[in-house]
Amino acid sequence: MYLKSKNIYFPNQIKRSGYLKIEGEKIAGFYDEVDPSEDIIDYGDHLIIPGFIDQHIHGWGTGSFMHDKSVHSINEMKKNLPYEGVTGFLATSGAEPIEDIVQGIKSASYVVENQKDDGATLLGVHLEGPFINKEFKGMQREDCCIDPDLSVMNQFMEAQSVPHVIKLMTMAPELPHALEMIKFCKANKIQINIGHSAATFDIIRDLKEYGLGGVTHMYSGMRGLHHRELGVAGAALYFDDLNCEFAKQTGMTVKPEAFALAWRLKSKDKIIMTTDCGGLALSKKEKYHYVRKQTFIPAGNYLIIRNDDGTEEKVDIREYKNVRNLELSYIRSIQNLIDNVHPSVHEILKITAENPARYIGVDDRKGSLEAGKDADLLVVDKDFNLLVTYCMGKRYIYEE
Amino acid sequence: MYLKSKNIYFPNQIKRSGYLKIEGEKIAGFYDEVDPSEDIIDYGDHLIIPGFIDQHIHGWGTGSFMHDKSVHSINEMKKNLPYEGVTGFLATSGAEPIEDIVQGIKSASYVVENQKDDGATLLGVHLEGPFINKEFKGMQREDCCIDPDLSVMNQFMEAQSVPHVIKLMTMAPELPHALEMIKFCKANKIQINIGHSAATFDIIRDLKEYGLGGVTHMYSGMRGLHHRELGVAGAALYFDDLNCEFAKQTGMTVKPEAFALAWRLKSKDKIIMTTDCGGLALSKKEKYHYVRKQTFIPAGNYLIIRNDDGTEEKVDIREYKNVRNLELSYIRSIQNLIDNVHPSVHEILKITAENPARYIGVDDRKGSLEAGKDADLLVVDKDFNLLVTYCMGKRYIYEE
Repeated sequence: MYLKSKNIYFPNQIKRSGYLKIEGEKIAGFYDEVDPSEDIIDYGDHLIIPGFIDQHIHGWGTGSFMHDKSVHSINEMKKNLPYEGVTGFLATSGAEPIEDIVQGIKSASYVVENQKDDGATLLGVHLEGPFINKEFKGMQREDCCIDPDLSVMNQFMEAQSVPHVIKLMTMAPELPHALEMIKFCKANKIQINIGHSAATFDIIRDLKEYGLGGVTHMYSGMRGLHHRELGVAGAALYFDDLNCEFAKQTGMTVKPEAFALAWRLKSKDKIIMTTDCGGLALSKKEKYHYVRKQTFIPAGNYLIIRNDDGTEEKVDIREYKNVRNLELSYIRSIQNLIDNVHPSVHEILKITAENPARYIGVDDRKGSLEAGKDADLLVVDKDFNLLVTYCMGKRYIYEE
Repeated sequence: MYLKSKNIYFPNQIKRSGYLKIEGEKIAGFYDEVDPSEDIIDYGDHLIIPGFIDQHIHGWGTGSFMHDKSVHSINEMKKNLPYEGVTGFLATSGAEPIEDIVQGIKSASYVVENQKDDGATLLGVHLEGPFINKEFKGMQREDCCIDPDLSVMNQFMEAQSVPHVIKLMTMAPELPHALEMIKFCKANKIQINIGHSAATFDIIRDLKEYGLGGVTHMYSGMRGLHHRELGVAGAALYFDDLNCEFAKQTGMTVKPEAFALAWRLKSKDKIIMTTDCGGLALSKKEKYHYVRKQTFIPAGNYLIIRNDDGTEEKVDIREYKNVRNLELSYIRSIQNLIDNVHPSVHEILKITAENPARYIGVDDRKGSLEAGKDADLLVVDKDFNLLVTYCMGKRYIYEE
């Protein structure tokens, strides 16, 4: 099969007009011309770009790794995510009871091992906690924030039924025994993001070389920048080697101008976009959404959405269309980004695909349009409206 | 007279080897060759650069505009400053009683009008207050921080016996009646720096166009950067048109890395170096110096310097050599800057001379080595040790 487009985006700022060949799950090559009798889909002047990789997503649509640690829940995320441009992701846990996290890693291992040809690729697990600082817990459970502990970490490691499911961990490096944990993770090729952390600039400077790779949801859940104590935010801006992970770009949690300062300061190779979505529909607790001015009330397979004026709606949370718009999707967050900082398409490729693929170590098979890599790609129009997603060569088009 | 050097620095990144001609108080031109019988001083491969302009200096050595509003005190500053590389300056007041500021403006007007061919040029006055916010008063007198008031401002204007002595004012734009004051200053060609201010990002965004030109001692005495409220510091970093004034670069008040972030973000055309020195020797109150671990006790024409171990020294404050090292000089602050951010010589020229000259409106006669401008220049070695200063064509060499 050949995908034809005037705008196919390759690494290193190369854009070509021509034919991308897909064989089964893989990209087979690129051709300027092909025999017209071949199986060709012509996307005209729409853009063909690599699929997004979301290294920080707790849940999406009808599935949530945060609220439901089952294989089913992960598979629901896999099924929904292609419709938002995501072709690969890390199922992300939080500060939760140890046994819940262990169960999550087991389920994720099963899915990784038995990855069905269905939806986005589960690339592994991002442990956002439990080794984080209560002082900057944000929406995390305070009772589950614990000091770094290798015996706990070993339980997580043993829960992996296939190697290297845990790809990324968010931790607070100022906590006791942090250095041991950093060294352990480095030895086991687990990236470490600083997050939910009160670390000072000097702590980060001193520990960085042992394996601190970046920061989680830049600016939020961390000691902010002050001119005499630059904190986590200042260190992330100052040190060229630290990756900055950003979510959503709505201006709600981080003002567009604060994002713009990081955009100007950091190399585009060191910014990573994520959604940090939770799978809100599967929350087990009633929750008020201050942006939407609605209260979400769980009721088994249903969610009651109560408006501030008292009116209510009850929706079946097993239907993706009912829950799709509860949170801001990856593709919509990229549209926000475009409004805020006017990136080039090549910059978008880096921060949505190349950088996260390299950071979590899956760039041998994901993150760019290159022969031999997985056929994970998106067809978008000039305004970055998503038209078609391919995951492992299989086509996904959202229909209402 | 001709000054010969292999490294004469002109605007726009031009460096030449040759002869700079000085005629009386002016730069008369540049020549590749001159008749060897002419009056030539050969500075070899030392650098010839424009003299520093300090737009924020309360006092220096044996003079202090902050502590003594007399003509004599300003003349002492003029006399001492060439030995630190400063060839032009704004005598800077603080939040002080109205009548003291009025007296200061009168004295400064007299000196501007009767500028003797002696030392650095007094370029005018910088009013650092009184229209500043108590909440961010720093070392300023809280009882003298007042809301913007045009009747007070008119007293300051009337105290000028020659036009346009007041060149710069630091104010807090969030205070009542700020807009009136900004418009008044703009109409009277007085630059406004935001400083000692709790202004929000939005206030600055909205008022900027009426005449806010920059910020005073960037990062200090202002609402700091937060990712949901960028404050004065964030606005100064974000808006390309705002000038950032920095002092000293010792890392005591602003960490080198915080300075480095501004250095990366801002155009080099929008950074202005100052000293913010006070003329410590003339302070009327006992003061503990936490860096030097010494207490300074005023005693008429003498200063008692008491060390933490109880030992004392008594020095005559009328002698420059006795008080020269109580504060960090302009040239030494530039040496700090060089250590911190490794600027090019052309960048140093901008932030020490060209930018302040343009900002306070004296670039028709100061700030760069150009024919027709005042012969204010420095001879420094490669390590920026100051060897010779010329003010209005007159030579100053410090001898112990």
